Amino acid sequence: MWFTSDNAGPAAPQVIEAVAKANESYTGSYGADPIMDRVRDRIREIFEAPEAAVYLVATGTAANSLALACLVEPWQTVYCHRNAHIEEDECAAPEFYTGGAKLTLLDGAHAKIDPDSLQQAIDFTARAGVHNVQKGALSITNATENGAVYSLEELRALTSIARSADIPVHLDGARFTNALVAMGCTPAEMTWKSGVDAVSFGGTKNGLIGVEAVILFDPKRAWEFELRRKRGGHLFSKHRYLSAQMEAYLTDDLWRDLAGKANAQAAKLSAGIMALPNAELNHPTDANIVFASWPRSGHKNAQEVGAQYYFWPFDQSLEGPDDELLSARLVCNWATTDADIDTFLGLIAP
Amino acid sequence: MWFTSDNAGPAAPQVIEAVAKANESYTGSYGADPIMDRVRDRIREIFEAPEAAVYLVATGTAANSLALACLVEPWQTVYCHRNAHIEEDECAAPEFYTGGAKLTLLDGAHAKIDPDSLQQAIDFTARAGVHNVQKGALSITNATENGAVYSLEELRALTSIARSADIPVHLDGARFTNALVAMGCTPAEMTWKSGVDAVSFGGTKNGLIGVEAVILFDPKRAWEFELRRKRGGHLFSKHRYLSAQMEAYLTDDLWRDLAGKANAQAAKLSAGIMALPNAELNHPTDANIVFASWPRSGHKNAQEVGAQYYFWPFDQSLEGPDDELLSARLVCNWATTDADIDTFLGLIAP
Amino acid sequence: MWFTSDNAGPAAPQVIEAVAKANESYTGSYGADPIMDRVRDRIREIFEAPEAAVYLVATGTAANSLALACLVEPWQTVYCHRNAHIEEDECAAPEFYTGGAKLTLLDGAHAKIDPDSLQQAIDFTARAGVHNVQKGALSITNATENGAVYSLEELRALTSIARSADIPVHLDGARFTNALVAMGCTPAEMTWKSGVDAVSFGGTKNGLIGVEAVILFDPKRAWEFELRRKRGGHLFSKHRYLSAQMEAYLTDDLWRDLAGKANAQAAKLSAGIMALPNAELNHPTDANIVFASWPRSGHKNAQEVGAQYYFWPFDQSLEGPDDELLSARLVCNWATTDADIDTFLGLIAP
Amino acid sequence: MWFTSDNAGPAAPQVIEAVAKANESYTGSYGADPIMDRVRDRIREIFEAPEAAVYLVATGTAANSLALACLVEPWQTVYCHRNAHIEEDECAAPEFYTGGAKLTLLDGAHAKIDPDSLQQAIDFTARAGVHNVQKGALSITNATENGAVYSLEELRALTSIARSADIPVHLDGARFTNALVAMGCTPAEMTWKSGVDAVSFGGTKNGLIGVEAVILFDPKRAWEFELRRKRGGHLFSKHRYLSAQMEAYLTDDLWRDLAGKANAQAAKLSAGIMALPNAELNHPTDANIVFASWPRSGHKNAQEVGAQYYFWPFDQSLEGPDDELLSARLVCNWATTDADIDTFLGLIAP
Repeated sequence: MWFTSDNAGPAAPQVIEAVAKANESYTGSYGADPIMDRVRDRIREIFEAPEAAVYLVATGTAANSLALACLVEPWQTVYCHRNAHIEEDECAAPEFYTGGAKLTLLDGAHAKIDPDSLQQAIDFTARAGVHNVQKGALSITNATENGAVYSLEELRALTSIARSADIPVHLDGARFTNALVAMGCTPAEMTWKSGVDAVSFGGTKNGLIGVEAVILFDPKRAWEFELRRKRGGHLFSKHRYLSAQMEAYLTDDLWRDLAGKANAQAAKLSAGIMALPNAELNHPTDANIVFASWPRSGHKNAQEVGAQYYFWPFDQSLEGPDDELLSARLVCNWATTDADIDTFLGLIAP
Repeated sequence: MWFTSDNAGPAAPQVIEAVAKANESYTGSYGADPIMDRVRDRIREIFEAPEAAVYLVATGTAANSLALACLVEPWQTVYCHRNAHIEEDECAAPEFYTGGAKLTLLDGAHAKIDPDSLQQAIDFTARAGVHNVQKGALSITNATENGAVYSLEELRALTSIARSADIPVHLDGARFTNALVAMGCTPAEMTWKSGVDAVSFGGTKNGLIGVEAVILFDPKRAWEFELRRKRGGHLFSKHRYLSAQMEAYLTDDLWRDLAGKANAQAAKLSAGIMALPNAELNHPTDANIVFASWPRSGHKNAQEVGAQYYFWPFDQSLEGPDDELLSARLVCNWATTDADIDTFLGLIAP
Repeated sequence: MWFTSDNAGPAAPQVIEAVAKANESYTGSYGADPIMDRVRDRIREIFEAPEAAVYLVATGTAANSLALACLVEPWQTVYCHRNAHIEEDECAAPEFYTGGAKLTLLDGAHAKIDPDSLQQAIDFTARAGVHNVQKGALSITNATENGAVYSLEELRALTSIARSADIPVHLDGARFTNALVAMGCTPAEMTWKSGVDAVSFGGTKNGLIGVEAVILFDPKRAWEFELRRKRGGHLFSKHRYLSAQMEAYLTDDLWRDLAGKANAQAAKLSAGIMALPNAELNHPTDANIVFASWPRSGHKNAQEVGAQYYFWPFDQSLEGPDDELLSARLVCNWATTDADIDTFLGLIAP
Repeated sequence: MWFTSDNAGPAAPQVIEAVAKANESYTGSYGADPIMDRVRDRIREIFEAPEAAVYLVATGTAANSLALACLVEPWQTVYCHRNAHIEEDECAAPEFYTGGAKLTLLDGAHAKIDPDSLQQAIDFTARAGVHNVQKGALSITNATENGAVYSLEELRALTSIARSADIPVHLDGARFTNALVAMGCTPAEMTWKSGVDAVSFGGTKNGLIGVEAVILFDPKRAWEFELRRKRGGHLFSKHRYLSAQMEAYLTDDLWRDLAGKANAQAAKLSAGIMALPNAELNHPTDANIVFASWPRSGHKNAQEVGAQYYFWPFDQSLEGPDDELLSARLVCNWATTDADIDTFLGLIAP
């Protein structure tokens, strides 16, 4: 049982097949492959954005950092939640790619940004004159690092503040499709129709080997993005193998199916834990991640037989009273089976 | 017939199979996969370097830039040939990753660095005091951008100058194995036994989907490399798919076989062109690239039927006298067939 | 009456005279002037640090950023108070000079860092592995932005945490001498004897035209500092005019006298305000800055006749009920006269 | 006798007086002083550029780097002469401030850029696609590092190439007034009327303590410049002392008088050397620097009595045959006396 992360499981078989198929014969390099032409068209169609600039990179950190670097200047700040991946898990890659911009950390439950926190931070920056960083961009993560999903209303409450402040909006969609499936809206509604300017449209956490699309709805910085991508070492010479993954992903609704499965299994796992005595849910299970607490004894049982997951926060210990609650993060992915869940629930049950 | 680049052809079937095989089940992320443990051991064995730090990234630009960033400070300079990939083809990625270091451009035939040019440049920098950049590192490309291969003697003439100046040496080995096969020496002789401190050990141009190893023979900057890789967005969450490619590459001498084939086909193509009347070789065909000139009429014939290759330099035209010589770059790869070559020679022959 | 900042008043006459005197004849450039030799010796003597590296720059932002850049790597973080000058008033200069390091913001009353806040932040960073920034350095401001002064005990509580975490300590001493005079200790006690590794020893706010010394008690990064200074455009060709200012400053205790006067006037102003009905002190007046509140009517009177000072926070208004308290920052400097204070107190009194 | 550099001599007495005068009373900080308002107006008047953005910094490296950072993106290149100050004497400050842009080095006699060299370099960059740096800006130094002065025709030959390539032009005017006086044209003709977009209008080498103005004829990047200046630590809190220097400089033609004197003394020195047997001029003495060679015996005599100047290039030695010619750089400044010159000529004469 692996619940450590969505990146611990296998890629979808269709993706592997697509890579193998792309291996036939010769083709253009650096994105000049016909598969990429189809991918670009398909993403524009899915997002109802015929003018959008669409690029592929291989990691989420690259997608986020390159997109942000196109949105902010080195003397500006990116407003984000204090638990955002760009703050906590990218080793200052945004600072590196932007040339030294700041991140201004916002509060809010379940790693969702609280609108008041955003408004206050923007107001503060606006007063700063030449002596401090200037307002730059808003970065929202959906689904959040705590597995919560913004409603369209919540999303728009934030983007409308950004619009009023005249700053662009980036969406970290490392778990874009998990959120999309949970929201039951269209990709366009989840993005540009709600005021989002640039998206990291993740695939890696949802069944790909390693591909994220960056979508810039306003293509005016497209060429800048290409140069930044190249300069960052993220332009693949054998680009076709990225294209092929993304094409398979977007074919026959594979992307939605994979995310739907992951979300469903998380819901099942979450409900199973909540049915146990003395268990608590720490964040809503909106997408494919469960944050829950249960007694130490259950953790002992599970870890003894090798169940893989993280304490969350990390600094908890198996040493201590059996009935003390310990908190964990459990991530489901498209390949999580009912058996995985049932076995796990059996282990942690008192 | 595609002779545009070594990245236009397919990956080796064994590599695709290895990726598919790596897709089974769950494993650790971010390099904590058992395949990477085997790859690290294997590379240390091949290079006779049991202490070396070994990391994988997906592009040559990432490998070069990250390695150089570990070798030089922002106020230093990298000595390299003026046609080096790091100067001409990476959109200032070394400047980006090093935090603004310079590249000092050296001369030399066939994109091999002339030792006198290196010595003069180092001497000049040594005089500079605080007002100019300081001597940083030497970066050698082998095989060179012109398809030439340094002999061990030539290599050591350069590294001994670097040693005297107390600066480290980086080897851009995008075509490492093509050079190795041509040199007939061991990987250790081609690197640390000849004074090389860090290697970009390329696989992408020689049959992989997209993997380059960075090898630091002195592991003292290993952790720095890991942080720079993460911060650059080059640490793969599903790292196993990089590991798997490299493992396949190093199994049963696949890497040497692929490079050997590419070199052999280039030699055959080169000899075939030289057998034509009015043809000229512009650089020695030491590895898998042919730089040659032949009359415009031959170019017309070839391009009319869709032969893919680049004029070198680019600014030549099919318009003009039939008998004027035009220069081209023709790159062979492991998949280049005898038929490709024979057909091509037939087209360009008068 | 100008209470806007310590930089609004004149330089000490002795400083102007020294600059004029330095103008005679020819001398070496770029710090090779004999005055600098004397300044270096004098600072080493004053700080009881015969090995210290000593450099002059012209602005506090340069001093702080260059010092921090020598202490942290781009993938590390600087722990500082959330109201620190390096966070709020330098337009991300530390991020620029460090190559994209982070600032981790700490809490604490009167802009003094709370030791628990520091310890928690370090603990959090220590857990981060390769995915987040690493612990880098601690930066303490003394006197603080709120005009408070750390006791030696308070200072050492912080530096001992830094020592335990094996990170260096920077002291932003823009108002070093104001703090020194208030603490009644020696410069050595205030710095290296209390675990400080690098100091921005400010002069500009205390009667100079524009000079700050950077003192590195461990000279191992001296050459790096020199290169960073040059590369930042902060190495003055006609360096003698910086040297001359600092020499005058350190002659006949001028530095202490100036700070002593500024502190005394602030104490007087603070006491005068507190003697008014309905006035409140917002931070202790330990050095030369008064943070106080009094009724709007008093602000109206003062501002009507052109008294210069800032509302703190800025977003307060003269519009509103007369008896509502409004908060202000009032900065005294060496030239603040008793008449300035008496006039001001007369204006704001009910 | 000091001929090492224009920065070894004193500032003009009027400048020192102006600084002393500016020391009276209180004034606004960070450029909000009334003297700066007058300086801005005066520079706009002198340059016939009523809309120009005008800023002061304290060093030439700051002026050049900040100006260039406003003109080029990190993925672009600055075309400059290979002996330009920005290449040879600023420790990669332009690379630092631009975020890692390149400098493309051009050839030309007397450190003047050869138009063909510029055209070829631009053509090469234009072909590069996404893989190399893009054309960024042209930087011209006038007077050049070799003491030569471009004619308006020569200047316009370069700027018209830049215009055709649609790239902006920066003028490094560290010795602006020396060139202006030599050219006999107006400041407007020497700059925007000849296609220059941004100027580093130097004062430090011509009698100031340390002030350079940056003039952006198109003010659209004015705010960006202010933020970059602050972020670089180059915004002075006590800005009035910079303003005062520049005001004195521009009053009663002081700037022209100082440069005129320096140029005249250089001409006299140059003629005096040329009148000696076996002397050679290495570059034309158009401005205030003499590059000349004379026999070693003359160098010995001069250096024995402490004459201060540099061998150029540095790596020449007093050891060797008496009649061998050694090359030197001799810089005159406004304070160079006839006696200095006569004494020096007497020493080096056979």
